[in-house]
Amino acid sequence: MDSKSSFILKDCVDYDRSKGSVIILDQTKLPSQELYIELSSIDQIVEAIVKLRVRGAPALGVVASLGISLVISKKDFSNVEQLIVCFNDYYQKLIESRPTAVNLKNGLDRVKEALNSSVERGLDLNGIKCELINEAIQIKNEDIEANIKMAEHGLSLIKHNYRILTYCNAGHLAVSRFGTALSPIYLGHKKGYNIHVFSCETRPLLQGSRLTMYELNRAGVSCSLICDNMVSYMMQSGEIDCVIVGCDRVAKNGDVANKIGTSMVAILAKYYNIPFYVIGPSSTLDHFADCGKDIIVEQRAKEEVTDLFFKESVAPKGVDVKNPAFDITSAELITAIITENGVYKYPYNFMSKDK
Amino acid sequence: MDSKSSFILKDCVDYDRSKGSVIILDQTKLPSQELYIELSSIDQIVEAIVKLRVRGAPALGVVASLGISLVISKKDFSNVEQLIVCFNDYYQKLIESRPTAVNLKNGLDRVKEALNSSVERGLDLNGIKCELINEAIQIKNEDIEANIKMAEHGLSLIKHNYRILTYCNAGHLAVSRFGTALSPIYLGHKKGYNIHVFSCETRPLLQGSRLTMYELNRAGVSCSLICDNMVSYMMQSGEIDCVIVGCDRVAKNGDVANKIGTSMVAILAKYYNIPFYVIGPSSTLDHFADCGKDIIVEQRAKEEVTDLFFKESVAPKGVDVKNPAFDITSAELITAIITENGVYKYPYNFMSKDK
Repeated sequence: MDSKSSFILKDCVDYDRSKGSVIILDQTKLPSQELYIELSSIDQIVEAIVKLRVRGAPALGVVASLGISLVISKKDFSNVEQLIVCFNDYYQKLIESRPTAVNLKNGLDRVKEALNSSVERGLDLNGIKCELINEAIQIKNEDIEANIKMAEHGLSLIKHNYRILTYCNAGHLAVSRFGTALSPIYLGHKKGYNIHVFSCETRPLLQGSRLTMYELNRAGVSCSLICDNMVSYMMQSGEIDCVIVGCDRVAKNGDVANKIGTSMVAILAKYYNIPFYVIGPSSTLDHFADCGKDIIVEQRAKEEVTDLFFKESVAPKGVDVKNPAFDITSAELITAIITENGVYKYPYNFMSKDK
Repeated sequence: MDSKSSFILKDCVDYDRSKGSVIILDQTKLPSQELYIELSSIDQIVEAIVKLRVRGAPALGVVASLGISLVISKKDFSNVEQLIVCFNDYYQKLIESRPTAVNLKNGLDRVKEALNSSVERGLDLNGIKCELINEAIQIKNEDIEANIKMAEHGLSLIKHNYRILTYCNAGHLAVSRFGTALSPIYLGHKKGYNIHVFSCETRPLLQGSRLTMYELNRAGVSCSLICDNMVSYMMQSGEIDCVIVGCDRVAKNGDVANKIGTSMVAILAKYYNIPFYVIGPSSTLDHFADCGKDIIVEQRAKEEVTDLFFKESVAPKGVDVKNPAFDITSAELITAIITENGVYKYPYNFMSKDK
């Protein structure tokens, strides 16, 4: 896959260094509108993350690290200490915007390290700003490179004419360029594999119907939409050859936090004896989480379930609603976890050379 | 439970014998509006069934048998043969309106039998019409009696403080009065069991959020709404003590056809070792289906998934969509099937005296 393929959109997270701004495709407007917006303050960036204008674990790492660096670069500081205070304030605001996706923290930590190292080296304000931006751009570039490697490793698990179920959106729109779960699908499509994708709509935010169907359709990949509760039916009917999903955070034992419902799909795949693959860059690994129990699951507003996309509220007023944004898939349900470094199988040891 | 409990609505399928019409609560208008409508032609009744203004397996049996009898009763015929031709035409139209719910056919077949028997007995046109209506009313009354017995049998499986997951709507709104799956919940609630219900929204038609939350809320039963893809999370979090669902058709081996997604919930319950109960009147048994494979699954319009309740289409225009209305839950996943005749356990033999 070339690093600039024509079938996909403009990168959904990009930047304008001269303006000190991040440019994102506003995903809340899809599929009806392709709107790119410019974010030039931390508040705008935090709002975009919280409102899911930009989402997807790897994309969050990129937008947060680019965002903090570019906004800092456009600010005037009297001295380095002032810059550090401002950086720490922004860092905290960004960290709190979405607690589950670890890439966001991993990206910010890399930029923070670049800050510490450039302060230690005695760089001046301009030098420090430059180092921050360079580190963030490096994160984006590494993400693109990781996409290409994940595509290749992932494709080794896919056969011609495969019918692949995917969940939520882990494609182009979730990363810097090609996607995680969808990257081998795009690569296979390009190589003539005749792949068909079933996309779960993914309630409550419908990333599957709004985003995955949108980007697959635009790329010319054959695809069908189903509701999340149709997965068992499709598997029972023999329509699914494998499942490929992305991930928001991977614990050291291979337990995976991903969009709510992922563990449901994994349990169904196990029951019907269908391979279940998870793809994500190594930046999604959380070296501080031993297992899934150590991962915080974000709880979101009830109106996302009852009102958000609807003409009128679909539930009686004032009823109690649960809205966890993620769930934990146990490592033993996962056939393989694919990163840019290769294909890992259960029991997972991401540090080991032999996978 | 009294046969007229005050906490529930007016029966959602009723009739006006003098007008020759069926009166239904239009369920497409819930939860925002409680609208009762009068249906006095077969076309109106078929439309109401197809559009799901009336739904729920037992309710379909009642509305079809009352409908055909009452509409026939208001028509003028020159002779019995003419009435029979008309009956057969209406019978066919009603049968085709929803192919999966077997109660509809079972109800119509009982009225047809009443027709045949009254013709054999040499009754005149008025006598025949009277027999048809009496049989249909009998079906409705039996359904109410069955509700009460299912409530009692079902309650034997429920403990105080149980947190019960239910799926779709198998309550008051799906039957003649109290419900199938929800009947023991109402009875338990009345007896002070302190039950909490989790209702799955049930995509694409949202019977869980629109109907189940509505009727539980109205009856004062403590309840929470979740999306269908949150079942695994709730079970994993230890929040569910048992699952109770209704059924649209039960094969002789105990395989159950019910709302799409039911088999998903059953597989998850098995994985998390949570009891999974199915409740339905014996009229839901299909004596012609040996197993689930013999049951036709109705496929519905794609717009239900992409457009129906939404402000704007949530998927790109023209994409392929699957929309099966039901799935088959294997008998071995079901802890018990409860009918008005008692509690049956796997392997299922609905004819046997000892269950």
